[in-house]
Amino acid sequence: MRKVAVAGIGFTKVGEPWERNVKELFAEAAMSALKDAAHAEIDQLYVANMMGAHLQGQIGMGAMMAEAIGRPGLPAVRIEAGQASGGVAFNEGVKAVASGLSDWVLVGGVEKMSDLLPEAVTTALTGPEEQEYTAYTGVTKTGLSAILHRLYNHEYGATPEEIGWFAARGHDNAVGVAHAQFPFKLSIERVMTSPMEADPIRMMECAAVADGAAAVLLCPAEIATGIEVAASTVATDHLSLASRKNPLTLEAVKKAGTKAYEMAKVKPKDIDILEVTDDTTIDGVLSLEDLGFAEKGKGAKLVAQGYTTRTGEMPTNNFGGLKARGNPVGATGLYQIAETVIQLRGKAGANQVLDAKIGMAQSMAGVGSTCSVAILRRV
Amino acid sequence: MRKVAVAGIGFTKVGEPWERNVKELFAEAAMSALKDAAHAEIDQLYVANMMGAHLQGQIGMGAMMAEAIGRPGLPAVRIEAGQASGGVAFNEGVKAVASGLSDWVLVGGVEKMSDLLPEAVTTALTGPEEQEYTAYTGVTKTGLSAILHRLYNHEYGATPEEIGWFAARGHDNAVGVAHAQFPFKLSIERVMTSPMEADPIRMMECAAVADGAAAVLLCPAEIATGIEVAASTVATDHLSLASRKNPLTLEAVKKAGTKAYEMAKVKPKDIDILEVTDDTTIDGVLSLEDLGFAEKGKGAKLVAQGYTTRTGEMPTNNFGGLKARGNPVGATGLYQIAETVIQLRGKAGANQVLDAKIGMAQSMAGVGSTCSVAILRRV
Repeated sequence: MRKVAVAGIGFTKVGEPWERNVKELFAEAAMSALKDAAHAEIDQLYVANMMGAHLQGQIGMGAMMAEAIGRPGLPAVRIEAGQASGGVAFNEGVKAVASGLSDWVLVGGVEKMSDLLPEAVTTALTGPEEQEYTAYTGVTKTGLSAILHRLYNHEYGATPEEIGWFAARGHDNAVGVAHAQFPFKLSIERVMTSPMEADPIRMMECAAVADGAAAVLLCPAEIATGIEVAASTVATDHLSLASRKNPLTLEAVKKAGTKAYEMAKVKPKDIDILEVTDDTTIDGVLSLEDLGFAEKGKGAKLVAQGYTTRTGEMPTNNFGGLKARGNPVGATGLYQIAETVIQLRGKAGANQVLDAKIGMAQSMAGVGSTCSVAILRRV
Repeated sequence: MRKVAVAGIGFTKVGEPWERNVKELFAEAAMSALKDAAHAEIDQLYVANMMGAHLQGQIGMGAMMAEAIGRPGLPAVRIEAGQASGGVAFNEGVKAVASGLSDWVLVGGVEKMSDLLPEAVTTALTGPEEQEYTAYTGVTKTGLSAILHRLYNHEYGATPEEIGWFAARGHDNAVGVAHAQFPFKLSIERVMTSPMEADPIRMMECAAVADGAAAVLLCPAEIATGIEVAASTVATDHLSLASRKNPLTLEAVKKAGTKAYEMAKVKPKDIDILEVTDDTTIDGVLSLEDLGFAEKGKGAKLVAQGYTTRTGEMPTNNFGGLKARGNPVGATGLYQIAETVIQLRGKAGANQVLDAKIGMAQSMAGVGSTCSVAILRRV
């Protein structure tokens, strides 16, 4: 099995560019990843996309994006794992290089959520829940997270404000970030006085509708030195919260994390920078805990205390995370990887975490039905 | 890179079981593949599905099917490449084993097309065409094939009846096949007098709405001897027929085929049995030609003359193909692989092609925007 390196990264600014379609967004990210790597050849393309069928009626995006980047003919496939599509596509790309079947693999993700009305997006976001059992009731993704939020407060005596801090901390890191959807501060007061979205989750605790694309170019580690893929894992869990032993433990996150630590031969304390899924604040808190960075039930308090800030113990979501950088769902896992690479290269400017050598990125579908974890290392 | 073997296969009867959902169908196919292999362990699950979002509103089928087969937690992902999803998922599964990252990989495909009215299915089948350019005009998948059918007749002087024979030949092979949707003969007269679907394509030249699931269990060739994966390839093409140099040459099929022959170190004359995509008759004819089994423009005439029958020169679609065995789209590529394995094992009963040692299966999305090819070998 060959070692795999990240040779290049690229992404678009996250936002709502109504005048651009999925092909244009994807091509921009892909072309900038190739430019970043100073390399033109591609053997295989992976396209991460979650809701193209729901929002554009578009499937078959593998072939479509191969053509969009001027490479019709290229082996190409779409990877879909709900909101974890980007992270899981990265995992497939790593396997393609590790197997020796491909040398240069482009993994790109794209999502265009602003094409339809918010109701359609809400329906699509609930797509990975079981339609005949969970989605059927009319519950939304945020509604499911609200159950966990409430239960977390009840079980661990956390306050809504402690959890709300996750959003404020993300926004702190997004200030001035050129590719961020919301590159400005958001005070904890603004978070806690924003309208209720799904009690006790407030609007400013939720990632917004976003369009964007991100891409990474992978190759064998003997060819491109710099950033090595130390681990890439995927795990799943029961879809329904009611089927899980303890809903406050995200087993998919634990499994993918544990396996990634083994694969990379590191421990949580060795991780210098972290990207986690915070499409709502409680998702971020639970991810932090289940990846081993906080004791169960203590995560929210730690975040409120500054544990995840740039100079804190575990610098997290260093360009804003899903809430502030933005969450174009199928692309999000690849934004996380790309941002981790920027940090490991020491090119994060004002956002730089000092001496970042090992970084982790965690992507999650639904309320944890699928989780991908990648560990990257500067070599 | 490790060699890969097919350790087990399983599938459901193709039909319209209105009382069963995607989970039940998938689980039946998966469980019978495990039983066939006499093996219970799985490291990784690939789920091929094309139109779950369109027809069930369901995405995230990786995690969903891991749970459905009693393995919540398993690394799992959905692979989507339009109507080629099954064949392309097989390719991902092969990479996972070849890389050494997984030992036992289950690749399953499922499609439930009978849940909604035919209009919804027609829309979904056009999903892999470009929505803003091609599908936007209202053209259907069959309509696009009709353009090729008409052009083929015009360019090569073929008759509609010669092309129509592809359907009759498929039905001949489906007679008595327990898992076939239409296990009976269909005379060329019935084909040519059936209602016009998209002139010049008639209803009895088109695969029907179908539900079904198929699965294969892969492992390293040193563990399970019997059937080896000699090649597995994927290629793409321009989506729009108008963008192609010659619409009557399916470049994706040529590329995937050529690469597969190289990988397996065989030539078309070495292939003993063949499964090709015939969701309409012309797709079957063009596939036959572009895989190198017939000179361009001669395929239809050869089919009419008996070239593809069980005792003909190139026994093709030996259990009925998409038209007669049935075409539950996301699963179809895996039915083809499973049927190839049955032949190579010599277990095809009345359908057995004598001395079948090397088999090829070709799966295609749309009118050739993605093509997967697998070559399997008895060892």
